[in-house]
Amino acid sequence: MPLVIGVLKETHPGERRLSVVPDVVKKYQGLGASVVMQKDAAKGAHFRDTDFADVTWVDSAADVVAAADVVLCVQPPAAETLAAMKPGSVLCGMLQPWYSTERVQQLVDGQVTAFALELLPRISRAQSMDILSSQGAVAGYECALIAADHSPKFFPMLTYAAGSIRPAKVLVIGAGVAGLQAIATARRIGAMVEAYDVRPETREQIESLGAKFVDTGVSAAGAGGYARELTEEEKAKQAERLAKAVAQCDALITTAAIPGRKAPRIITADMIARMKPGAVVVDMAAETGGNVEGTVAGEKVWINDVLVIGPTNIPSRMPVHASEMVAKNLFNFISPFIKDGALALDWEDEVMAGSCLAHAGELRHAGVKQALGL
Amino acid sequence: MPLVIGVLKETHPGERRLSVVPDVVKKYQGLGASVVMQKDAAKGAHFRDTDFADVTWVDSAADVVAAADVVLCVQPPAAETLAAMKPGSVLCGMLQPWYSTERVQQLVDGQVTAFALELLPRISRAQSMDILSSQGAVAGYECALIAADHSPKFFPMLTYAAGSIRPAKVLVIGAGVAGLQAIATARRIGAMVEAYDVRPETREQIESLGAKFVDTGVSAAGAGGYARELTEEEKAKQAERLAKAVAQCDALITTAAIPGRKAPRIITADMIARMKPGAVVVDMAAETGGNVEGTVAGEKVWINDVLVIGPTNIPSRMPVHASEMVAKNLFNFISPFIKDGALALDWEDEVMAGSCLAHAGELRHAGVKQALGL
Repeated sequence: MPLVIGVLKETHPGERRLSVVPDVVKKYQGLGASVVMQKDAAKGAHFRDTDFADVTWVDSAADVVAAADVVLCVQPPAAETLAAMKPGSVLCGMLQPWYSTERVQQLVDGQVTAFALELLPRISRAQSMDILSSQGAVAGYECALIAADHSPKFFPMLTYAAGSIRPAKVLVIGAGVAGLQAIATARRIGAMVEAYDVRPETREQIESLGAKFVDTGVSAAGAGGYARELTEEEKAKQAERLAKAVAQCDALITTAAIPGRKAPRIITADMIARMKPGAVVVDMAAETGGNVEGTVAGEKVWINDVLVIGPTNIPSRMPVHASEMVAKNLFNFISPFIKDGALALDWEDEVMAGSCLAHAGELRHAGVKQALGL
Repeated sequence: MPLVIGVLKETHPGERRLSVVPDVVKKYQGLGASVVMQKDAAKGAHFRDTDFADVTWVDSAADVVAAADVVLCVQPPAAETLAAMKPGSVLCGMLQPWYSTERVQQLVDGQVTAFALELLPRISRAQSMDILSSQGAVAGYECALIAADHSPKFFPMLTYAAGSIRPAKVLVIGAGVAGLQAIATARRIGAMVEAYDVRPETREQIESLGAKFVDTGVSAAGAGGYARELTEEEKAKQAERLAKAVAQCDALITTAAIPGRKAPRIITADMIARMKPGAVVVDMAAETGGNVEGTVAGEKVWINDVLVIGPTNIPSRMPVHASEMVAKNLFNFISPFIKDGALALDWEDEVMAGSCLAHAGELRHAGVKQALGL
């Protein structure tokens, strides 16, 4: 009996991605596994069932988990699907480990071996598996397009027969993968870009993309490549310097997120009040509370004459390539443990062990345990 | 009594542009004219009333036309406003001369001197007044952004830790001002671009923007820099060659318009049926019937797995810079005839005379006369 990889149709409202693409299915098959997919799983990402060769199609999520040894997902499956999973089977995807005690408990109780790729150790070897980074790149690109599309101004300089238009000023807050991609995209379109991050070592990356670093004199370099939380005093100093840059820009893109925490509030109502009429704000952190005071997740709101956009599930707006990236990240994570059509997990492997949320009836991740109080 | 320039608040639903901007108001004042503006006229374009110095603000369109010698507009004013215009006063803007017999008749009967900038002779000297071109540039830029924003794929090539993404293929039909700007913008974002125009002399322009010219072997070079209408046989040949390019692209932007005519139908349902799943079509000619079979003006429709977008009044999506361009175009048109605070029209002037729709109770434009059967 070869290893069976199961692919669920995503159930999160509006989710259009899926956890495999045709090329990646071939790769699993090349390792001796067989692939079971839920009908229509690929529809939202514009793949046809016929694009996938030698796949067994089943009607329901229950059929997938009944057949599969390893279940792949983009976002956490529905509770009834988790309940139907076989004890000892493996679940692999973005499981939002910080946000649902019930779900974590269900995985533990169901004896599922659950790998949450949000928990991936941030080491070089894991980069090719890093879903947060790959989807961050998608989100950063999309947010720059959203800003350009909603701006009442041209981003690029434009010379026409009656004069010329000055390029727009775009300010990007947060220079992680998403922020850097937003900077690169806004620059490509032709805007003048300034960017800010609490980690001063991002200056070089920002400048390498042709943008200007906003120096506030505050550093928040933290562990594992993420930003640490700032003190109140540091926040005030940061806010004062930032307010000036915010007041001068035509479009503001905020990308500051701390995994497992509420998004830091960086842009206050007062800063928004000082923005130019017609300025556009895209708050990439809308889903976790927003970096901007007044952001409403999933909505576009006018605050005075400033448009504040709080897009949600941004990578799902670009499902073909976002799915391709997710699929490759998941394959790179799990494939080293597939040999001759069988799964052999290696608990000595730092990346695998570090990403494990639950295994054999145990909650395995110390950080999640502490955060959820379990 | 100095010349009074009147600025109307636009009334077309969704119209956010206006016919002056603060700098241009100063220029009129510099020529000795005074400026009367309708309250809130500038609101949609994100200007504040306080941005305009030394302007007389009035409550209604009727107050504007009662005070003004020269009335400026972006789109045709409402019928009741036209009815209130003083005999002998001047109206200047985009008047959509081809589409409303009633409006033209009203201008004639009201003894208004009406300049429709769509009628501008296409000569070098008139380029700085060419509203169709300036707004075409805005529309082309916007349509490329709309296509990128709705595509399920990245436009640019992207290399990430788990692989790389190939750039999207964008096909632009029509290489006028709008098409060229769409090409330039899609290229800036990072797509591979092919473009087609019935006028073979556009090949060089297309190639100069880094795009590839689709050669169908059909030429439709026409008078005055516009395309002529093709014969049925030419259309079939063009369609056959085009269908292949359409089938290969990820995004299609169509920009083919013939002034005063229904937009040519270039993309058939059959061509759409052969497109890739997830392909995006932006039909810039949606308002005049569409270049694409199945386009619905003002809507996004799915045809199989292809998204067909028919945006309307595209320049109004970018009202700050679109207004700046319109304002400068109108100023460049009318200002040569303002001397020492007085208006002195020169009927010997080719540009002025050629743009005149109505004067002194007469319909002055032969082409409009013939088209409307007046």
